[in-house]
Amino acid sequence: MSFKKLDASIEKHKSNLCIGLDPLPEKIPEFLSEYEDPVLEFNSRIIEATQDVVCAYKLNTAFYEVLGEKAWSTYGETIARIPDDVYVIADCKRSDIGNSAKHYAQTFFDFFEVDALTVNPYMGYDSVDAFLNYRDKDAFVLVLTSNRGAEDFQLMEFGGKKFYEVVLEKISQWNKEGNIGAVVGATKVEQLSHIRKCYPQIPLLIPGIGAQGGSIESVAEVAGTDGAPVIVNVGRDIIFSGYDEKFADKVREKAFFYNALLKK
Amino acid sequence: MSFKKLDASIEKHKSNLCIGLDPLPEKIPEFLSEYEDPVLEFNSRIIEATQDVVCAYKLNTAFYEVLGEKAWSTYGETIARIPDDVYVIADCKRSDIGNSAKHYAQTFFDFFEVDALTVNPYMGYDSVDAFLNYRDKDAFVLVLTSNRGAEDFQLMEFGGKKFYEVVLEKISQWNKEGNIGAVVGATKVEQLSHIRKCYPQIPLLIPGIGAQGGSIESVAEVAGTDGAPVIVNVGRDIIFSGYDEKFADKVREKAFFYNALLKK
Repeated sequence: MSFKKLDASIEKHKSNLCIGLDPLPEKIPEFLSEYEDPVLEFNSRIIEATQDVVCAYKLNTAFYEVLGEKAWSTYGETIARIPDDVYVIADCKRSDIGNSAKHYAQTFFDFFEVDALTVNPYMGYDSVDAFLNYRDKDAFVLVLTSNRGAEDFQLMEFGGKKFYEVVLEKISQWNKEGNIGAVVGATKVEQLSHIRKCYPQIPLLIPGIGAQGGSIESVAEVAGTDGAPVIVNVGRDIIFSGYDEKFADKVREKAFFYNALLKK
Repeated sequence: MSFKKLDASIEKHKSNLCIGLDPLPEKIPEFLSEYEDPVLEFNSRIIEATQDVVCAYKLNTAFYEVLGEKAWSTYGETIARIPDDVYVIADCKRSDIGNSAKHYAQTFFDFFEVDALTVNPYMGYDSVDAFLNYRDKDAFVLVLTSNRGAEDFQLMEFGGKKFYEVVLEKISQWNKEGNIGAVVGATKVEQLSHIRKCYPQIPLLIPGIGAQGGSIESVAEVAGTDGAPVIVNVGRDIIFSGYDEKFADKVREKAFFYNALLKK
């Protein structure tokens, strides 16, 4: 069964909070610059300070690829420092034809050994299939994203439905192994409750809290309903909480703060 | 003006052929295994043997990321060996919110210094914008892909139009700097001519020839019409043409063969 590890982590840590480990070299505390890999040191300290208060970490590849030659080693080393009982999501939003998607699946599931990844559905079933074939791994498909551009296609009317609803219907049909989840942005309050009501069996990964302006209250409401796991990602608003040697203490406080809000 | 480098390369090399440098360690000639980086050696020999008969090379990140720690160095080193007058496309199909997309743009345009990349449109304008802001670089947006899954969403009816037509309309509106192209699969023969007829000003990148079964004749017809540049990608069918020490000669022959077919 899939999402088993996520369920266990939520239960064990009494948390629906996912921290987005999306470091920016220019925003991490300056004193870390003396380390060989400042970004890795930054991530390690956050992981150490928060591993008992989160259910998951999400690592967006955009923030690692830009590191150049160090990209994949910093990405892999960070993942290696996450305890085994915490769920790890590669936020890579990959999409490609089957023959290429297979290699992305190998990269993230076999090489980095993450538990889940994010996938863009535009190219259809055979671009997602390669990920679903890993039955003990999970794929969160982009359904309704937190950004303004979601209006361009996802929120267009499509024969009485919005396009994101069409995507949601399709991925429910593809979900034979029970290892598909959906990404729904916290900024889309109205649709979020609607999606949860119609598809309570689909796990939700909700980004967009904090810097992107999503509402924590409506997200907490959805997270509190019965059904598949709901996890809420907070990135910048937690990881950039402090800049001195004790920054990790502030990060920990912020993580407790957000996790408490999600329980209301 | 954008696509300037592509135009110049097509003109200089009298070629509309793009070679997909998508190596698979298990399919490259065995004798290369004695090199420190067999994939890089494989790519280098192909580049050396074909640089005067192609207008572009396209490197799909799926085939490099899977190399693990060497991923980004093999990717970067390969790009560095491509002569300055040949156009380079990072086939990465990225998509993310603006703040993250900006980092992808930095990675591919500033760090790897490619001329163009491929982008997935699902997340809308502000996920593509970061790439368009590089006015002397180009972005090929996925419109109608070569795989079967294109039927799931791209070919759905959408108020009298197919969804890919809606995408095409939108990206034409976004094309203020003239640096947007479209990816249209060679397997979609009927739509390919239609797209070319309706949007002759949009450059086309056409994959799906060879292993994927696309028709070279109908592609040649489209490539021969007046309008923005049309380039045709062939990958596996060219790069895996030989397995002995003289494999690059066979690769060169195949490149000439395909380029000639495109001129008919």
